[in-house]
Amino acid sequence: MIIELSVIPIGVGPSLSKYVACVMRVIKKSGLKYESHSMATNIECDWEDITPLVKKCHEELKKMGVERISSTVRISERTDKPYTMQGKLQSLEEKM
Amino acid sequence: MIIELSVIPIGVGPSLSKYVACVMRVIKKSGLKYESHSMATNIECDWEDITPLVKKCHEELKKMGVERISSTVRISERTDKPYTMQGKLQSLEEKM
Amino acid sequence: MIIELSVIPIGVGPSLSKYVACVMRVIKKSGLKYESHSMATNIECDWEDITPLVKKCHEELKKMGVERISSTVRISERTDKPYTMQGKLQSLEEKM
Amino acid sequence: MIIELSVIPIGVGPSLSKYVACVMRVIKKSGLKYESHSMATNIECDWEDITPLVKKCHEELKKMGVERISSTVRISERTDKPYTMQGKLQSLEEKM
Repeated sequence: MIIELSVIPIGVGPSLSKYVACVMRVIKKSGLKYESHSMATNIECDWEDITPLVKKCHEELKKMGVERISSTVRISERTDKPYTMQGKLQSLEEKM
Repeated sequence: MIIELSVIPIGVGPSLSKYVACVMRVIKKSGLKYESHSMATNIECDWEDITPLVKKCHEELKKMGVERISSTVRISERTDKPYTMQGKLQSLEEKM
Repeated sequence: MIIELSVIPIGVGPSLSKYVACVMRVIKKSGLKYESHSMATNIECDWEDITPLVKKCHEELKKMGVERISSTVRISERTDKPYTMQGKLQSLEEKM
Repeated sequence: MIIELSVIPIGVGPSLSKYVACVMRVIKKSGLKYESHSMATNIECDWEDITPLVKKCHEELKKMGVERISSTVRISERTDKPYTMQGKLQSLEEKM
Protein backbone atom coordinates (compact mmCIF):
# COMPACT_ATOMS: atom_id res chain seq x y z
CA MET A 1 0.00 0.00 0.00
CA ILE A 2 1.26 3.45 -0.86
CA ILE A 3 0.02 6.59 0.85
CA GLU A 4 0.70 10.23 0.19
CA LEU A 5 0.71 12.34 3.33
CA SER A 6 0.30 16.12 3.32
CA VAL A 7 0.15 17.91 6.67
CA ILE A 8 -0.73 21.62 6.73
CA PRO A 9 -0.40 23.58 9.98
CA ILE A 10 -2.94 26.40 9.87
CA GLY A 11 -2.66 29.71 11.67
CA VAL A 12 1.06 29.83 12.45
CA GLY A 13 2.23 32.21 9.75
CA PRO A 14 2.99 31.71 6.05
CA SER A 15 6.37 30.05 6.61
CA LEU A 16 5.84 26.36 7.22
CA SER A 17 9.28 24.80 6.71
CA LYS A 18 10.06 24.28 10.41
CA TYR A 19 6.74 22.50 10.81
CA VAL A 20 7.26 20.44 7.67
CA ALA A 21 10.73 19.53 9.02
CA CYS A 22 9.01 18.31 12.21
CA VAL A 23 6.66 16.14 10.14
CA MET A 24 9.60 14.81 8.11
CA ARG A 25 11.41 13.80 11.33
CA VAL A 26 8.35 11.84 12.46
CA ILE A 27 8.20 10.07 9.09
CA LYS A 28 11.95 9.29 9.19
CA LYS A 29 11.73 7.91 12.72
CA SER A 30 8.87 5.61 11.66
CA GLY A 31 11.35 3.52 9.67
CA LEU A 32 8.92 3.32 6.77
CA LYS A 33 10.15 3.66 3.20
CA TYR A 34 9.34 7.14 1.95
CA GLU A 35 9.85 9.55 -0.95
CA SER A 36 9.51 13.23 -0.18
CA HIS A 37 8.72 15.82 -2.83
CA SER A 38 7.81 19.47 -2.90
CA MET A 39 4.11 19.01 -2.16
CA ALA A 40 3.89 16.05 0.23
CA THR A 41 5.53 12.72 1.13
CA ASN A 42 4.78 9.29 -0.33
CA ILE A 43 5.14 6.33 2.03
CA GLU A 44 5.01 2.56 1.63
CA CYS A 45 3.15 1.16 4.63
CA ASP A 46 0.45 -1.14 5.97
CA TRP A 47 -3.00 -0.26 7.28
CA GLU A 48 -1.84 -0.33 10.89
CA ASP A 49 0.90 2.25 10.22
CA ILE A 50 -1.36 5.01 8.95
CA THR A 51 -3.17 6.38 12.00
CA PRO A 52 -0.20 6.20 14.43
CA LEU A 53 1.96 8.04 11.89
CA VAL A 54 -0.48 10.85 11.14
CA LYS A 55 -1.49 11.18 14.81
CA LYS A 56 2.17 11.47 15.82
CA CYS A 57 2.67 14.24 13.24
CA HIS A 58 -0.31 16.13 14.69
CA GLU A 59 0.92 15.60 18.27
CA GLU A 60 4.39 16.95 17.52
CA LEU A 61 2.92 19.98 15.73
CA LYS A 62 0.60 20.67 18.65
CA LYS A 63 3.66 20.64 20.95
CA MET A 64 5.05 23.40 18.70
CA GLY A 65 1.90 25.46 19.32
CA VAL A 66 -0.16 24.59 16.25
CA GLU A 67 -3.89 24.71 17.06
CA ARG A 68 -5.37 23.72 13.73
CA ILE A 69 -4.09 21.15 11.26
CA SER A 70 -5.41 19.95 7.91
CA SER A 71 -3.90 16.69 6.72
CA THR A 72 -4.63 14.76 3.60
CA VAL A 73 -3.90 11.06 3.30
CA ARG A 74 -4.29 9.61 -0.17
CA ILE A 75 -4.38 5.83 0.14
CA SER A 76 -3.64 3.75 -2.93
CA GLU A 77 -4.20 0.02 -2.65
CA ARG A 78 -3.88 -2.63 -5.30
CA THR A 79 -4.34 -6.35 -4.85
CA ASP A 80 -3.75 -7.81 -8.31
CA LYS A 81 0.08 -7.44 -8.21
CA PRO A 82 2.91 -6.28 -5.92
CA TYR A 83 2.67 -2.55 -5.41
CA THR A 84 5.61 -0.33 -4.56
CA MET A 85 6.67 3.25 -5.28
CA GLN A 86 9.63 2.01 -7.33
CA GLY A 87 7.49 -0.48 -9.26
CA LYS A 88 5.03 2.27 -10.17
CA LEU A 89 7.76 4.53 -11.51
CA GLN A 90 9.40 1.67 -13.46
CA SER A 91 6.11 0.64 -15.00
CA LEU A 92 5.52 4.24 -16.04
CA GLU A 93 8.99 4.57 -17.57
CA GLU A 94 8.48 1.43 -19.66
CA LYS A 95 5.30 2.93 -21.11
CA MET A 96 6.97 6.23 -22.04
CA MET B 1 -12.05 15.78 14.61
CA ILE B 2 -13.76 15.88 11.25
CA ILE B 3 -12.66 13.81 8.29
CA GLU B 4 -13.78 13.75 4.71
CA LEU B 5 -13.63 10.31 3.13
CA SER B 6 -13.63 9.72 -0.61
CA VAL B 7 -13.25 6.15 -1.86
CA ILE B 8 -12.75 5.55 -5.59
CA PRO B 9 -12.89 1.99 -6.97
CA ILE B 10 -10.69 1.87 -10.06
CA GLY B 11 -11.08 -0.48 -12.98
CA VAL B 12 -14.67 -1.65 -12.52
CA GLY B 13 -16.37 0.49 -15.14
CA PRO B 14 -17.54 4.10 -15.14
CA SER B 15 -20.65 3.48 -13.01
CA LEU B 16 -19.66 3.57 -9.36
CA SER B 17 -22.95 3.99 -7.49
CA LYS B 18 -23.22 0.37 -6.30
CA TYR B 19 -19.71 0.63 -4.88
CA VAL B 20 -20.41 4.00 -3.30
CA ALA B 21 -23.56 2.47 -1.78
CA CYS B 22 -21.35 -0.26 -0.30
CA VAL B 23 -19.05 2.37 1.22
CA MET B 24 -22.06 4.29 2.58
CA ARG B 25 -23.36 1.12 4.28
CA VAL B 26 -19.99 0.68 6.00
CA ILE B 27 -20.07 4.29 7.21
CA LYS B 28 -23.69 3.93 8.44
CA LYS B 29 -22.89 0.74 10.33
CA SER B 30 -19.96 2.46 12.08
CA GLY B 31 -22.44 4.50 14.11
CA LEU B 32 -20.37 7.64 13.54
CA LYS B 33 -22.06 10.95 12.77
CA TYR B 34 -21.78 11.65 9.06
CA GLU B 35 -22.88 14.04 6.33
CA SER B 36 -22.85 12.68 2.79
CA HIS B 37 -22.65 14.92 -0.25
CA SER B 38 -22.15 14.45 -3.98
CA MET B 39 -18.35 14.19 -3.87
CA ALA B 40 -17.53 12.38 -0.59
CA THR B 41 -18.70 11.90 3.01
CA ASN B 42 -17.79 14.01 6.04
CA ILE B 43 -17.53 12.15 9.35
CA GLU B 44 -17.06 13.21 12.98
CA CYS B 45 -14.72 10.71 14.60
CA ASP B 46 -11.64 10.07 16.73
CA TRP B 47 -8.16 8.99 15.66
CA GLU B 48 -8.86 5.34 16.43
CA ASP B 49 -11.92 5.28 14.15
CA ILE B 50 -10.14 6.29 10.96
CA THR B 51 -8.12 3.25 9.87
CA PRO B 52 -10.73 0.59 10.80
CA LEU B 53 -13.36 2.55 8.87
CA VAL B 54 -11.34 3.05 5.70
CA LYS B 55 -9.92 -0.49 5.84
CA LYS B 56 -13.45 -1.91 6.16
CA CYS B 57 -14.54 0.09 3.09
CA HIS B 58 -11.62 -1.35 1.10
CA GLU B 59 -12.34 -4.90 2.34
CA GLU B 60 -15.98 -4.74 1.32
CA LEU B 61 -15.08 -3.36 -2.10
CA LYS B 62 -12.50 -6.10 -2.60
CA LYS B 63 -15.23 -8.68 -1.84
CA MET B 64 -17.17 -7.08 -4.73
CA GLY B 65 -14.20 -7.71 -7.02
CA VAL B 66 -12.45 -4.35 -6.93
CA GLU B 67 -8.69 -4.79 -7.38
CA ARG B 68 -7.53 -1.21 -7.11
CA ILE B 69 -8.83 1.54 -4.83
CA SER B 70 -7.81 5.16 -4.34
CA SER B 71 -9.11 6.72 -1.15
CA THR B 72 -8.57 10.20 0.16
CA VAL B 73 -8.96 11.04 3.83
CA ARG B 74 -8.84 14.74 4.65
CA ILE B 75 -8.33 15.08 8.39
CA SER B 76 -9.21 18.37 10.02
CA GLU B 77 -8.23 18.80 13.66
CA ARG B 78 -8.58 21.83 15.86
CA THR B 79 -7.70 22.05 19.54
CA ASP B 80 -8.58 25.63 20.50
CA LYS B 81 -12.36 25.09 20.62
CA PRO B 82 -15.00 22.36 20.18
CA TYR B 83 -15.08 21.26 16.58
CA THR B 84 -18.12 19.72 14.91
CA MET B 85 -19.62 19.70 11.42
CA GLN B 86 -22.67 21.62 12.68
CA GLY B 87 -20.52 24.14 14.55
CA LYS B 88 -18.51 24.84 11.42
CA LEU B 89 -21.59 25.47 9.31
CA GLN B 90 -23.16 27.71 12.01
CA SER B 91 -19.99 29.74 12.37
CA LEU B 92 -19.90 30.19 8.60
CA GLU B 93 -23.56 31.29 8.47
CA GLU B 94 -22.99 33.92 11.14
CA LYS B 95 -20.17 35.41 9.03
CA MET B 96 -22.27 35.57 5.87
CA MET C 1 -18.61 18.35 -14.74
CA ILE C 2 -18.62 18.50 -10.96
CA ILE C 3 -15.78 19.96 -8.94
CA GLU C 4 -15.16 20.10 -5.23
CA LEU C 5 -13.34 23.24 -4.12
CA SER C 6 -11.54 23.55 -0.80
CA VAL C 7 -9.65 26.78 -0.09
CA ILE C 8 -7.42 26.95 2.99
CA PRO C 9 -5.91 30.29 4.04
CA ILE C 10 -2.64 29.56 5.85
CA GLY C 11 -1.04 31.73 8.48
CA VAL C 12 -3.96 33.90 9.55
CA GLY C 13 -4.89 32.19 12.82
CA PRO C 14 -6.90 29.05 13.55
CA SER C 15 -10.29 30.67 12.97
CA LEU C 16 -11.10 30.56 9.27
CA SER C 17 -14.83 31.23 9.07
CA LYS C 18 -14.55 34.84 7.89
CA TYR C 19 -12.24 33.69 5.08
CA VAL C 20 -14.49 30.77 4.20
CA ALA C 21 -17.42 33.25 4.11
CA CYS C 22 -15.41 35.33 1.63
CA VAL C 23 -14.87 32.25 -0.56
CA MET C 24 -18.57 31.39 -0.33
CA ARG C 25 -19.51 34.90 -1.50
CA VAL C 26 -17.27 34.46 -4.55
CA ILE C 27 -18.90 31.12 -5.33
CA LYS C 28 -22.42 32.56 -4.88
CA LYS C 29 -21.65 35.52 -7.16
CA SER C 30 -20.42 33.17 -9.88
CA GLY C 31 -24.00 32.05 -10.46
CA LEU C 32 -22.89 28.43 -10.66
CA LYS C 33 -24.95 25.69 -9.03
CA TYR C 34 -23.28 24.68 -5.78
CA GLU C 35 -23.70 22.54 -2.68
CA SER C 36 -21.73 23.60 0.39
CA HIS C 37 -20.86 21.17 3.18
CA SER C 38 -18.68 21.24 6.26
CA MET C 39 -15.42 20.41 4.47
CA ALA C 40 -15.64 22.13 1.06
CA THR C 41 -18.07 23.16 -1.69
CA ASN C 42 -19.24 21.10 -4.66
CA ILE C 43 -19.93 23.01 -7.86
CA GLU C 44 -21.42 22.12 -11.24
CA CYS C 45 -19.42 23.94 -13.88
CA ASP C 46 -17.55 23.82 -17.19
CA TRP C 47 -13.80 23.79 -17.83
CA GLU C 48 -13.69 27.52 -18.46
CA ASP C 49 -15.27 28.31 -15.08
CA ILE C 50 -12.65 26.62 -12.94
CA THR C 51 -9.59 28.87 -13.06
CA PRO C 52 -11.46 32.22 -12.91
CA LEU C 53 -13.41 30.98 -9.89
CA VAL C 54 -10.44 29.71 -7.90
CA LYS C 55 -8.29 32.68 -8.89
CA LYS C 56 -11.02 35.09 -7.73
CA CYS C 57 -11.18 33.28 -4.36
CA HIS C 58 -7.41 33.67 -3.97
CA GLU C 59 -7.55 37.35 -4.99
CA GLU C 60 -10.26 38.18 -2.47
CA LEU C 61 -8.38 36.37 0.30
CA LYS C 62 -5.17 38.23 -0.57
CA LYS C 63 -7.10 41.50 -0.23
CA MET C 64 -7.93 40.35 3.32
CA GLY C 65 -4.21 39.94 4.03
CA VAL C 66 -3.74 36.23 3.40
CA GLU C 67 -0.21 35.54 2.13
CA ARG C 68 -0.36 31.79 1.61
CA ILE C 69 -3.26 29.71 0.33
CA SER C 70 -3.65 25.99 -0.31
CA SER C 71 -6.60 25.08 -2.49
CA THR C 72 -7.70 21.71 -3.68
CA VAL C 73 -9.89 21.25 -6.74
CA ARG C 74 -11.20 17.76 -7.28
CA ILE C 75 -12.51 17.52 -10.83
CA SER C 76 -14.91 14.75 -11.69
CA GLU C 77 -15.80 14.30 -15.34
CA ARG C 78 -17.92 11.65 -16.98
CA THR C 79 -18.85 11.42 -20.63
CA ASP C 80 -21.04 8.31 -20.85
CA LYS C 81 -24.15 9.94 -19.34
CA PRO C 82 -25.44 13.28 -17.97
CA TYR C 83 -23.62 14.11 -14.79
CA THR C 84 -25.05 16.32 -12.07
CA MET C 85 -24.77 16.54 -8.28
CA GLN C 86 -28.46 15.66 -7.94
CA GLY C 87 -28.17 12.77 -10.38
CA LYS C 88 -25.29 11.31 -8.40
CA LEU C 89 -27.18 11.45 -5.12
CA GLN C 90 -30.33 9.95 -6.70
CA SER C 91 -28.36 7.13 -8.28
CA LEU C 92 -26.78 6.41 -4.91
CA GLU C 93 -30.14 6.39 -3.10
CA GLU C 94 -31.57 3.90 -5.58
CA LYS C 95 -28.70 1.54 -4.82
CA MET C 96 -29.13 1.75 -1.06
CA MET D 1 2.59 29.00 -7.97
CA ILE D 2 3.04 25.26 -7.53
CA ILE D 3 0.34 22.74 -8.31
CA GLU D 4 0.16 19.01 -7.77
CA LEU D 5 -1.81 17.21 -10.44
CA SER D 6 -3.23 13.72 -10.01
CA VAL D 7 -5.34 12.27 -12.81
CA ILE D 8 -7.18 8.99 -12.22
CA PRO D 9 -8.88 7.23 -15.15
CA ILE D 10 -11.79 5.25 -13.74
CA GLY D 11 -13.28 2.13 -15.24
CA VAL D 12 -10.51 1.01 -17.57
CA GLY D 13 -9.02 -1.78 -15.49
CA PRO D 14 -6.60 -1.78 -12.55
CA SER D 15 -3.49 -1.12 -14.65
CA LEU D 16 -3.15 2.59 -15.21
CA SER D 17 0.45 3.08 -16.36
CA LYS D 18 -0.34 3.59 -20.06
CA TYR D 19 -2.85 6.29 -19.09
CA VAL D 20 -0.43 7.88 -16.65
CA ALA D 21 2.18 7.86 -19.44
CA CYS D 22 -0.32 9.73 -21.63
CA VAL D 23 -0.80 12.34 -18.89
CA MET D 24 2.97 12.64 -18.46
CA ARG D 25 3.40 13.30 -22.20
CA VAL D 26 0.85 16.12 -21.99
CA ILE D 27 2.72 17.63 -19.05
CA LYS D 28 6.09 17.32 -20.82
CA LYS D 29 4.74 18.93 -23.98
CA SER D 30 3.44 21.89 -21.95
CA GLY D 31 7.02 23.02 -21.40
CA LEU D 32 6.27 23.72 -17.73
CA LYS D 33 8.79 22.79 -15.05
CA TYR D 34 7.63 19.61 -13.35
CA GLU D 35 8.65 16.98 -10.81
CA SER D 36 6.99 13.60 -11.10
CA HIS D 37 6.72 11.19 -8.18
CA SER D 38 4.94 7.93 -7.50
CA MET D 39 1.58 9.49 -6.57
CA ALA D 40 1.21 12.56 -8.81
CA THR D 41 3.16 15.33 -10.57
CA ASN D 42 4.15 18.71 -9.16
CA ILE D 43 4.26 21.59 -11.63
CA GLU D 44 5.40 25.21 -11.47
CA CYS D 45 2.91 27.29 -13.42
CA ASP D 46 0.68 30.34 -13.59
CA TRP D 47 -3.09 30.58 -13.21
CA GLU D 48 -3.67 30.57 -16.97
CA ASP D 49 -1.77 27.28 -17.39
CA ILE D 50 -3.93 25.20 -15.06
CA THR D 51 -7.19 24.60 -16.92
CA PRO D 52 -5.68 24.09 -20.41
CA LEU D 53 -3.25 21.54 -18.95
CA VAL D 54 -5.82 19.50 -17.02
CA LYS D 55 -8.37 19.75 -19.84
CA LYS D 56 -5.77 18.48 -22.32
CA CYS D 57 -5.02 15.51 -20.05
CA HIS D 58 -8.73 14.65 -19.92
CA GLU D 59 -9.10 15.05 -23.70
CA GLU D 60 -6.20 12.72 -24.44
CA LEU D 61 -7.53 10.12 -21.99
CA LYS D 62 -10.99 10.32 -23.55
CA LYS D 63 -9.38 9.63 -26.95
CA MET D 64 -8.00 6.44 -25.36
CA GLY D 65 -11.55 5.42 -24.40
CA VAL D 66 -11.71 6.62 -20.81
CA GLU D 67 -15.28 7.61 -19.89
CA ARG D 68 -14.79 8.78 -16.32
CA ILE D 69 -11.89 10.70 -14.84
CA SER D 70 -11.21 12.00 -11.35
CA SER D 71 -8.47 14.61 -11.17
CA THR D 72 -7.17 16.45 -8.17
CA VAL D 73 -5.34 19.75 -8.49
CA ARG D 74 -3.75 21.02 -5.30
CA ILE D 75 -2.86 24.68 -5.81
CA SER D 76 -0.31 26.23 -3.50
CA GLU D 77 0.17 29.99 -3.76
CA ARG D 78 2.35 32.25 -1.68
CA THR D 79 2.84 35.97 -2.14
CA ASP D 80 5.29 36.95 0.60
CA LYS D 81 8.38 35.51 -1.14
CA PRO D 82 9.48 33.74 -4.34
CA TYR D 83 7.97 30.30 -4.43
CA THR D 84 9.47 27.39 -6.36
CA MET D 85 9.67 23.61 -5.94
CA GLN D 86 13.43 23.81 -5.47
CA GLY D 87 13.17 26.68 -2.99
CA LYS D 88 10.69 24.69 -0.90
CA LEU D 89 12.95 21.64 -0.75
CA GLN D 90 16.02 23.77 0.09
CA SER D 91 14.20 25.61 2.84
CA LEU D 92 13.12 22.26 4.27
CA GLU D 93 16.65 20.83 4.15
CA GLU D 94 18.02 23.83 6.04
CA LYS D 95 15.53 23.22 8.82
CA MET D 96 16.38 19.52 9.13
